[in-house]
Amino acid sequence: MPTPQRWTPRGWTDAPNAAGWQLPGIANLHSHAFQRAMAGLAERRTIEARPARPGDAQDSFWTWRETMYRFAARFDPDTLHAVASQLYVEMLEAGYTTVCEFHYLHHAPDGRPYDDPAAMSRALIRAAHDTGIRLTLLPVLYMSGGFDGRPLTERQRRFGHDVDAYLRLLDGLRAEVGDAVRVGCALHSLRAVPADAMRTVLAALPRDSRVHIHIAEQIGEVQDCLAVRDARPVEWLLDNAEVDTRWTLVHATHLTPDEVQGIARSGATVALCPTTEANLGDGLFPLRDYLDVRGAWGIGSDSHISVSPVEELRWLEYGQRLATRHRNIAVGNDSPSVGETLLREVTKTAANATGFQGVDDVVVLDAQSPQFAGATTEDAVDRWIFSGNRNPVREVTVAGVRVVAEGRHQHRDAVATGYADAMRHLMG
Amino acid sequence: MPTPQRWTPRGWTDAPNAAGWQLPGIANLHSHAFQRAMAGLAERRTIEARPARPGDAQDSFWTWRETMYRFAARFDPDTLHAVASQLYVEMLEAGYTTVCEFHYLHHAPDGRPYDDPAAMSRALIRAAHDTGIRLTLLPVLYMSGGFDGRPLTERQRRFGHDVDAYLRLLDGLRAEVGDAVRVGCALHSLRAVPADAMRTVLAALPRDSRVHIHIAEQIGEVQDCLAVRDARPVEWLLDNAEVDTRWTLVHATHLTPDEVQGIARSGATVALCPTTEANLGDGLFPLRDYLDVRGAWGIGSDSHISVSPVEELRWLEYGQRLATRHRNIAVGNDSPSVGETLLREVTKTAANATGFQGVDDVVVLDAQSPQFAGATTEDAVDRWIFSGNRNPVREVTVAGVRVVAEGRHQHRDAVATGYADAMRHLMG
Repeated sequence: MPTPQRWTPRGWTDAPNAAGWQLPGIANLHSHAFQRAMAGLAERRTIEARPARPGDAQDSFWTWRETMYRFAARFDPDTLHAVASQLYVEMLEAGYTTVCEFHYLHHAPDGRPYDDPAAMSRALIRAAHDTGIRLTLLPVLYMSGGFDGRPLTERQRRFGHDVDAYLRLLDGLRAEVGDAVRVGCALHSLRAVPADAMRTVLAALPRDSRVHIHIAEQIGEVQDCLAVRDARPVEWLLDNAEVDTRWTLVHATHLTPDEVQGIARSGATVALCPTTEANLGDGLFPLRDYLDVRGAWGIGSDSHISVSPVEELRWLEYGQRLATRHRNIAVGNDSPSVGETLLREVTKTAANATGFQGVDDVVVLDAQSPQFAGATTEDAVDRWIFSGNRNPVREVTVAGVRVVAEGRHQHRDAVATGYADAMRHLMG
Repeated sequence: MPTPQRWTPRGWTDAPNAAGWQLPGIANLHSHAFQRAMAGLAERRTIEARPARPGDAQDSFWTWRETMYRFAARFDPDTLHAVASQLYVEMLEAGYTTVCEFHYLHHAPDGRPYDDPAAMSRALIRAAHDTGIRLTLLPVLYMSGGFDGRPLTERQRRFGHDVDAYLRLLDGLRAEVGDAVRVGCALHSLRAVPADAMRTVLAALPRDSRVHIHIAEQIGEVQDCLAVRDARPVEWLLDNAEVDTRWTLVHATHLTPDEVQGIARSGATVALCPTTEANLGDGLFPLRDYLDVRGAWGIGSDSHISVSPVEELRWLEYGQRLATRHRNIAVGNDSPSVGETLLREVTKTAANATGFQGVDDVVVLDAQSPQFAGATTEDAVDRWIFSGNRNPVREVTVAGVRVVAEGRHQHRDAVATGYADAMRHLMG
């Protein structure tokens, strides 16, 4: 029986610690931490006037968003810290060691900035620090309610800034950057950021700043963009911004072949969120076509109805199999293994999307788990991604600190208690 | 904060044990136990001559079957007992309390019957007894290699019987029927059972025998059936057998609207296996249309790349969302909750498919888990199915015996040791 080894994008190497199969930490490229509190609470028909037939157009992404807005209204910095801490514990226990926070819950419920306008950002930084996950904080610029430039609604006021206030927020947060914290920029979406504001902000950013944006998630958004800007969202962005390796396009579900090629050529990373995109009924990203043109991509848990790189990668591949009616879609030239191909792809793009270079976080999978009985270097990664439901993550080390041992985060119980208190407040 | 209660298809009731949310045990309607040993081992390109483009037709269900045949050749009754025991422990810990074994690994590797022709069946019965799961054993009749009646290949000889030997096998197993064991009949598929053999076997079965059959899983199978029998598989079966509530049609993926109506009218149960059907790239069952005509269905873990009613039900619903681009597809008239609708459906069909009547097995979900922080009867089932990745099953009681406590099967460690030994033998 072979000894467990350490996987790297260049192949397997001997591992000093033979307790288990060692993998690199996974970067979670897209997170809205507060949504962890509503996981499981939007899986019901919420429309009073029930449509003639379940599944009709009324019950779509846009009704989910209503639930999300109701929840968003209840948060303050303390509850956000408690919910984010629970989420980050779950991420670390699942093998994520870096999280990109696409953070738009900036102000008090009435839309006024807190005394410290960065209070909610600091709550996230505190949660990351307390739990030991790397954080790429991406404060979100959110200015208008649609492509026509309409103002934010009352429920969106917590999210909004003008350009000057937004740039001040970013500037104020730069002091927080450290070994385990990066600060980048997020544009909520083309519909929420007018073209001139986008240009002003991009011009003001430091040269190496990461830029993330939601794009082409919904067909309605593509249609609205076509109607107002006479171009599809990705097409418009590629024509109107210097999209390069510093950019992460979130979702990018609905693409033409030209857009598939255009993203790949730009060097941008696509953040795929398979569990959320399935939960919301968004549709399937054209992964096989994108791999054919060597496009870069990673994964995110987004709304956190699931917090598991295994479920994201497993169902990314399965979605493609269901759509094509073939097996083993994500196979590259470097390995015949689907699991290794997926792991190599998400590993090689992490630095571009997160801004963390030279990371060597380690995730150790329990070699004694039945999932790995008889495992070899040929199949160990496939066993992790494509078999079983018990989480075999046994140890996680981030920036040299072992935060998970024996499968449990060092602060699991204390964080869960704080989360339960916050949930009583939020559900009350 | 409400006290956890017990869910029944008629609504929530007070629970004597307030330790957690109580659900009925879930019936697993389709299992090939031996395939548990190869979970994760077929997720790689196995074709020497790599197709021009990954995902081409060569890499399909039929290449997966090659891996399965290689594995099947290595089993004997002891290794089958060890692998099935591990599988049943995993099922019980996940909330399955009954399993239907669609069992075709009958003979020695050279195709000759064992001294006891039921030796492999008895290995499964022993595994069920040792672990405490209810078993509906369905020995499989497998006679030919295609619709044209071609004989079995060398690698299929372990699976085969003539009609007389098959009926003797069933007769010999009836003495095993008891409180937690049922014996029914499985026809492998229309392509593996000639029409006259099917009629002879069905006529010889006891009046209340359950009958399970693989049907319409692959488009190739539909085309072959059309070519040889001038009808689609489900269409042909409904015209040539008295299909009623005793029948379970496994997969039934590729259906016309008439076939959807026909199955629903017959009273048969469809066994859906969403994780296996996705892994194999089979396609999506038309669930919404089938619910509209009040068709009966349940779930199975089939090849056991996953062993979790949560993953089956979650992705059954998500697959429909991706295909329709709408949310909350499986919602009935009894509850606005998708989770409760799914749970009600699988609960009400279990007795028809398994042959066990009046079962009151109980699964207790840990109310202290963060997944249930703030839970109410309105959302508890949705939280179970549609959030998180930690398994919250805390206790499982089958036929009055508590087999899982504190989330662990009472024999978890001993069974895992036996499984590891068996895997060394099987992988060697």
